[in-house]
Amino acid sequence: MISAKMLKMTEGGSAIRAMFEEGARLAAKYGRENVYDFSLGNPNIPAPEKVRREIVRIASETDPMELHGYMSNAGYPETRARVAQSLNRRFGTDFHTDSILMTVGAAGGLNVLLKTLLNPGDEVLVFAPYFLEYGNYVSNFDGVLKAVPANIAGRFQPDAQALREALTERTKALILNNPNNPTGVIYTEESLRAVAAVLEEAERRFGHPIYLLSDEPYRELAYDGRVTPWPTGFYRDTLVCYSWSKSLSLPGERIGYIAIPPACADAKLIFDAAVIANRILGFVNAPSLQQKLVAECLEEGTDLAAYDKNRRALYEGLTRVGFDCVYPDGAFYMWVRTPGDDNEFVKRAKDHNILVVPGSSFACPGYVRIAYCVSYDTIVRSLPAFEKLAAEYGLSK
Amino acid sequence: MISAKMLKMTEGGSAIRAMFEEGARLAAKYGRENVYDFSLGNPNIPAPEKVRREIVRIASETDPMELHGYMSNAGYPETRARVAQSLNRRFGTDFHTDSILMTVGAAGGLNVLLKTLLNPGDEVLVFAPYFLEYGNYVSNFDGVLKAVPANIAGRFQPDAQALREALTERTKALILNNPNNPTGVIYTEESLRAVAAVLEEAERRFGHPIYLLSDEPYRELAYDGRVTPWPTGFYRDTLVCYSWSKSLSLPGERIGYIAIPPACADAKLIFDAAVIANRILGFVNAPSLQQKLVAECLEEGTDLAAYDKNRRALYEGLTRVGFDCVYPDGAFYMWVRTPGDDNEFVKRAKDHNILVVPGSSFACPGYVRIAYCVSYDTIVRSLPAFEKLAAEYGLSK
Repeated sequence: MISAKMLKMTEGGSAIRAMFEEGARLAAKYGRENVYDFSLGNPNIPAPEKVRREIVRIASETDPMELHGYMSNAGYPETRARVAQSLNRRFGTDFHTDSILMTVGAAGGLNVLLKTLLNPGDEVLVFAPYFLEYGNYVSNFDGVLKAVPANIAGRFQPDAQALREALTERTKALILNNPNNPTGVIYTEESLRAVAAVLEEAERRFGHPIYLLSDEPYRELAYDGRVTPWPTGFYRDTLVCYSWSKSLSLPGERIGYIAIPPACADAKLIFDAAVIANRILGFVNAPSLQQKLVAECLEEGTDLAAYDKNRRALYEGLTRVGFDCVYPDGAFYMWVRTPGDDNEFVKRAKDHNILVVPGSSFACPGYVRIAYCVSYDTIVRSLPAFEKLAAEYGLSK
Repeated sequence: MISAKMLKMTEGGSAIRAMFEEGARLAAKYGRENVYDFSLGNPNIPAPEKVRREIVRIASETDPMELHGYMSNAGYPETRARVAQSLNRRFGTDFHTDSILMTVGAAGGLNVLLKTLLNPGDEVLVFAPYFLEYGNYVSNFDGVLKAVPANIAGRFQPDAQALREALTERTKALILNNPNNPTGVIYTEESLRAVAAVLEEAERRFGHPIYLLSDEPYRELAYDGRVTPWPTGFYRDTLVCYSWSKSLSLPGERIGYIAIPPACADAKLIFDAAVIANRILGFVNAPSLQQKLVAECLEEGTDLAAYDKNRRALYEGLTRVGFDCVYPDGAFYMWVRTPGDDNEFVKRAKDHNILVVPGSSFACPGYVRIAYCVSYDTIVRSLPAFEKLAAEYGLSK
């Protein structure tokens, strides 16, 4: 007697979460140090010390009415102004207070934008491989998610030609996740310009805006000195969803924002509607104390060097024993081609106490995602297990 | 080009929020102390001192990975267990950890439950007057909200007979808000038993569960030693939505829970689906630090005496000059009959710098809601203005 849609979902469940529970089971059996759980994208670097200090200071010094009370559904003006200024300083943009809507994480932000934009039957495109939860977000508002096939030949950069073929008159938006989960690839400026050109042409052809929803929780997790290209300069109708889940290691706190460039089509209308959507979806506003906190931590970052150390050790360790890994520019994921079926590979990896997520869970079979947001020690101790797995598959060294 | 549904909403806007902005305008013009803004249900009592102390302690002592990391989408097991134990102790219930789902406030909880339960076209009943936002929540999931007419003769207790007439085969749920916004009435045990009898009869007649969604953010705001009746003992298929917005004055923090009684129809299925709904609607989980906080503050309450003092002063002051007020048992709202049209009354009140919300905004014209969660001083200084307004209307003293 519950919703038919939800009934179906209770029968599926989340593959990633199931893996998480499997990890707990194996850890209980073999000891946590003997299980190599690479399944969940939960930052293993603690929040910067400044986060603790600021929470204590803010709670001690702020009038509780101001700290815990209602504010505009868009968030505290002060926080929104500071976010806008920070973006303008970093990317030469022209955001102002009313360009920024504070949200319950990037997942909240995406739901708010999809609620704001979609009519039933509208299509939303996404480049495979992709975070399958996008499909649920789109389905919440009776939209239809359509995947643009993975660009395997192009090392998982977005394929503008394939995008052109997927666009239809019903296309309302394209979700783009940069740096990318699950591949760890950073979409280059060149790729984004090609995507923008295709979208612009489609806007002209169909006579209506097509919004690029840029989901950027991993923005600051970029290695080798790279900077994730800021998309609003390449394409006018870009809406950015951000979260501090990874950059400040605050995934449980649910704090993020939507940035709406002033030049974007219907910018004011989108802002006004998104504020209402934020309210009526039941978010009401982003958690107030966290809004105060992030305003003080805009220049803080996570310990990128620690992730980078993991990344190098894992990449080197896996390629050495013959695995074909996509070179990970960003995020904390390694995307590895499986010799044979990916679900079978995941099962066989589990026999070595290695937990990874099949590419099928990202609409891209034949690969696995290895989340290396784990201790360096786990990486090092897992390598012999990976080596045995490689040997089982007869990979050449 | 945004969603047609949302476009329509941007044209409406929230009457209560508009009033809030009008208040700011008047305050700028006449000085804040000369404006009597009773429009918004924002607690004016600060969070208890223990809240500050616990935030500082929790932030100082807790491993940041534990404090800010992901947990089960249902929330920290420790918090959920403590909430269950607290309810069991207070109400003799048999909740356990998996009966409790931590939510982004009660608004988040209601959205999660409606997502969990509704198929398109399902009907949800509510007793008028009611918080109009319920209509938006139900519409999010393509349900149809139907109001049971206000029970004016019965001083706004729920009218079981009128409920019986409103029930149809498509009725999936009844939202009940106790203590009530906007009337300040506490639905009595007798009323709840009568409602339960009607719902039970309808469940038998239609052969499927009809869920009572009990929205209880004002539960602890009950005066004269009254206790808001706990509903799950009267009616099996009750789902409770709670928030600490009022009891701990934390409305900006968005922290609450859903309680699902083990005996409720499809209890396990509802829990499992609600956890998924919490995730895919983009809440993911209730804010983590706030979950830790409320677990430590389950026995804390707000300064009820301060609200009570306001309540008495306002009730006495208004009835003395001839207004017909519903005696407010709970929450922080006074529900007052308007001599003539309520929208006209609101306009004329504004000429005396009094801001109140018309009953029309709660689907019950002919009344206004006065939110007395303001300073006592505001109450006292507003009374001469109310007296002038009463005189204008020729009310008898």
